[in-house]
Amino acid sequence: MNFPSKLIEDAVNEMSRLPGIGKKTALRLVLHLLKQKESVTEELSHALLALRKEIKYCQKCHNISDTDVCSICRGVRRDRSIICVVEDIPDVLAIENTSQYQGLYHVLGGVISPIQGIGPDELKIESLMERIRLAETEDKVEEVILALPATMEGDTTSFYITRKLKALNIKVSTIARGIPIGGELEYTDEVTLGRSILTRVNYSAD
Amino acid sequence: MNFPSKLIEDAVNEMSRLPGIGKKTALRLVLHLLKQKESVTEELSHALLALRKEIKYCQKCHNISDTDVCSICRGVRRDRSIICVVEDIPDVLAIENTSQYQGLYHVLGGVISPIQGIGPDELKIESLMERIRLAETEDKVEEVILALPATMEGDTTSFYITRKLKALNIKVSTIARGIPIGGELEYTDEVTLGRSILTRVNYSAD
Repeated sequence: MNFPSKLIEDAVNEMSRLPGIGKKTALRLVLHLLKQKESVTEELSHALLALRKEIKYCQKCHNISDTDVCSICRGVRRDRSIICVVEDIPDVLAIENTSQYQGLYHVLGGVISPIQGIGPDELKIESLMERIRLAETEDKVEEVILALPATMEGDTTSFYITRKLKALNIKVSTIARGIPIGGELEYTDEVTLGRSILTRVNYSAD
Repeated sequence: MNFPSKLIEDAVNEMSRLPGIGKKTALRLVLHLLKQKESVTEELSHALLALRKEIKYCQKCHNISDTDVCSICRGVRRDRSIICVVEDIPDVLAIENTSQYQGLYHVLGGVISPIQGIGPDELKIESLMERIRLAETEDKVEEVILALPATMEGDTTSFYITRKLKALNIKVSTIARGIPIGGELEYTDEVTLGRSILTRVNYSAD
């Protein structure tokens, strides 16, 4: 693509480095900004810069945070006896948006993947153990929920963490897998459907 | 959506003001930036700010430009006797990328649309007439190509400009409409197909 202006070429090139944004989309976004007030571009740029420069990661759960310890870990209404282990930050947001969980989180920052060269030491697994051990004194952790992806890497990580937790005598659970609510049986993939039959649960009509 | 950090909330809100980018996509883009080096965010922000603050519009054709007169209008190899009239800036880029056109452009900045309250005075139509009149002395304009959208508004604008140009005794043409190259007859909409039959051209097997 040839651009009539170096300024627009630079902006399009930078914009198209974002995932899922090609040159044409980047051009559309950049031309949109040109049509808006200058303040729109300023606010966008400043918000991104402020985020990148000032963001912190919670010292306890490694979630993103404005402070050293995140609002969830500091939350007075949070159940400190449960920790939900997730792969990355968007998973925390997704679970939070369900409003069904009141415990704490632990963000691993990935899952074990020998192919990508990610071993347990690259993840915040030791930090999880440390956190559980330290909590022995006051807020004792009683349950760890594994909410990792249903992939080979996710399962490996779940298995690894479960083995490590065994010594600490803590209940370990994993989120339920099965047919999504509202999902149609005939359009569900066979692995999920097969597993949902094998892991069927008791039904009560009460 | 609840965010664990005000910084990330601001960045997501600003990002999702861009067209076609919802909150979820904005979050994905913002988290991507967090995983990259700080320089990636800096370069993006600075490119957008520089573009918005320093961009100029060509005094002659109203295309975006780094200088008062754009590189196309200044181009020594450009055929100054032809002006292609387009609706907006992306159209110039699209035609330039075909490498099939060596003339100049004129960006109207829109098309006549009574519904949206856009009349001829809101567009750069008078500027086009002025430009053609001024060019009388040296680089006389001999042809105006109308490359406006094939909509009611586009057609109205084409008609309006053609009427205005009549007095100046200039050849007016419009880009060909028909079946796209590689397009299948059976999947072409009936208006395009019908018009392509009515406006059929002589075929020579040479």
